[in-house]
Amino acid sequence: MNLVLLDDRDRDGASRVTLSDARATHLLTVLKVTRGQHVRIGVLDGPFGVGTVTAIADGRVTMECVFDGEVPARPQVDLLLALPRPKVMNRLWAQLSALGVGQIILTNAERVERPYFDTHVLDEAHYRPLLIEGLQQARDTRLPAVSIHRQFKVLVEDHLDTLFGNGARLLAHPGSTVSARSLVREHPDQRVLLAIGPEGGWNTFELSLLEAHGFRQISLGPRTLRVDTACTALLAIVQAALAEAHGG
Amino acid sequence: MNLVLLDDRDRDGASRVTLSDARATHLLTVLKVTRGQHVRIGVLDGPFGVGTVTAIADGRVTMECVFDGEVPARPQVDLLLALPRPKVMNRLWAQLSALGVGQIILTNAERVERPYFDTHVLDEAHYRPLLIEGLQQARDTRLPAVSIHRQFKVLVEDHLDTLFGNGARLLAHPGSTVSARSLVREHPDQRVLLAIGPEGGWNTFELSLLEAHGFRQISLGPRTLRVDTACTALLAIVQAALAEAHGG
Repeated sequence: MNLVLLDDRDRDGASRVTLSDARATHLLTVLKVTRGQHVRIGVLDGPFGVGTVTAIADGRVTMECVFDGEVPARPQVDLLLALPRPKVMNRLWAQLSALGVGQIILTNAERVERPYFDTHVLDEAHYRPLLIEGLQQARDTRLPAVSIHRQFKVLVEDHLDTLFGNGARLLAHPGSTVSARSLVREHPDQRVLLAIGPEGGWNTFELSLLEAHGFRQISLGPRTLRVDTACTALLAIVQAALAEAHGG
Repeated sequence: MNLVLLDDRDRDGASRVTLSDARATHLLTVLKVTRGQHVRIGVLDGPFGVGTVTAIADGRVTMECVFDGEVPARPQVDLLLALPRPKVMNRLWAQLSALGVGQIILTNAERVERPYFDTHVLDEAHYRPLLIEGLQQARDTRLPAVSIHRQFKVLVEDHLDTLFGNGARLLAHPGSTVSARSLVREHPDQRVLLAIGPEGGWNTFELSLLEAHGFRQISLGPRTLRVDTACTALLAIVQAALAEAHGG
């Protein structure tokens, strides 16, 4: 945990915060904070700041908080992901928010098994703490938006333009030889939507529908990767291409 | 499993192979093979080929195998990794061989806890099947070499030039603004050795020693990633830069 994220429920005064949950345990047992110590903090979807520990009692940590004006920019990449099996999706939540995505659009596809949608892994009460864990790891405050779509065709035809307006739409597909970097570099100020299919890939109909809606194929290289490895690999490549374009 | 990897122990004749372990179970229950069906195969550290199923009995699958001449090239990237905690290392084995690394050099560092070395996760009998699992996922036959070093200084001063001769030595470090891609592109035909430190980073001595031995700092971007996410992200970026340089 490289940042302690607070939300409105944590504030018991304008600038005072008392934590008693896993964050307090982490502060006490891992960071071993003492009175007077400064801690990096942030407000969920808000600014960064510094907390000064003013009291420690019964596993609770109280801090006086000062926030600076800076709210981090929303990550420039969004992800359209064919819902993987629950075990993989569970592992992905924190990984995705750590890597930085603006939104996570989960969809059905022919090769997605129906029971994957009926898991607690997709309950907001389950995934929200995991997304926050990833943000605290990566020192970000911007919680990814999440939407879940059981009908691929309805998503692509009726909802996608609202969820993701202008920008580059990329589709990872075996056989393509176009690099993600080259397409991102064409319009480095645009948002990027990265589509990653199920194990076994998109079927022909799904591919055609995506391409008819502006998605362009990119290569994943010659190796077949697991979905979670592929997400990390491609997000890293896209983020690096964006950083390079912005001189970062 | 996108490739069935065989080793010498599997061969009961020049071209006949009978499998009875997890590979047979996968062939029967996931791929649901029948007599006469063709299966992608490979020999560990050897060529690719095709197996034709000739018999199925009692959970065992027998194939007649034909190998072509092609042995895949060894991946051009090696990894020098400060040993992470066992749970993370366990997850990494298959991920690393799937991404493609020529060798995995595990080392001690100040911020590596000593008990990390005393885990069964570092037994060859434990990690070899995981490395093979990653190769079977990625369709590769080249098993990464693994070496484990309890003394960082001895490794860097006395053994590293033997393990990794000429090539680009890169060191992921927060604060650097140099992209991995730019250094890889300087000499795209060289091997690349990528060093990734422990949670909490290399200490000052370790950094200096690495830099004195030719390592150049590269950026991981502004986000602090978990070690396993960082490994995947950086390996993907380096592999993409190499593929781009070779017109792939």
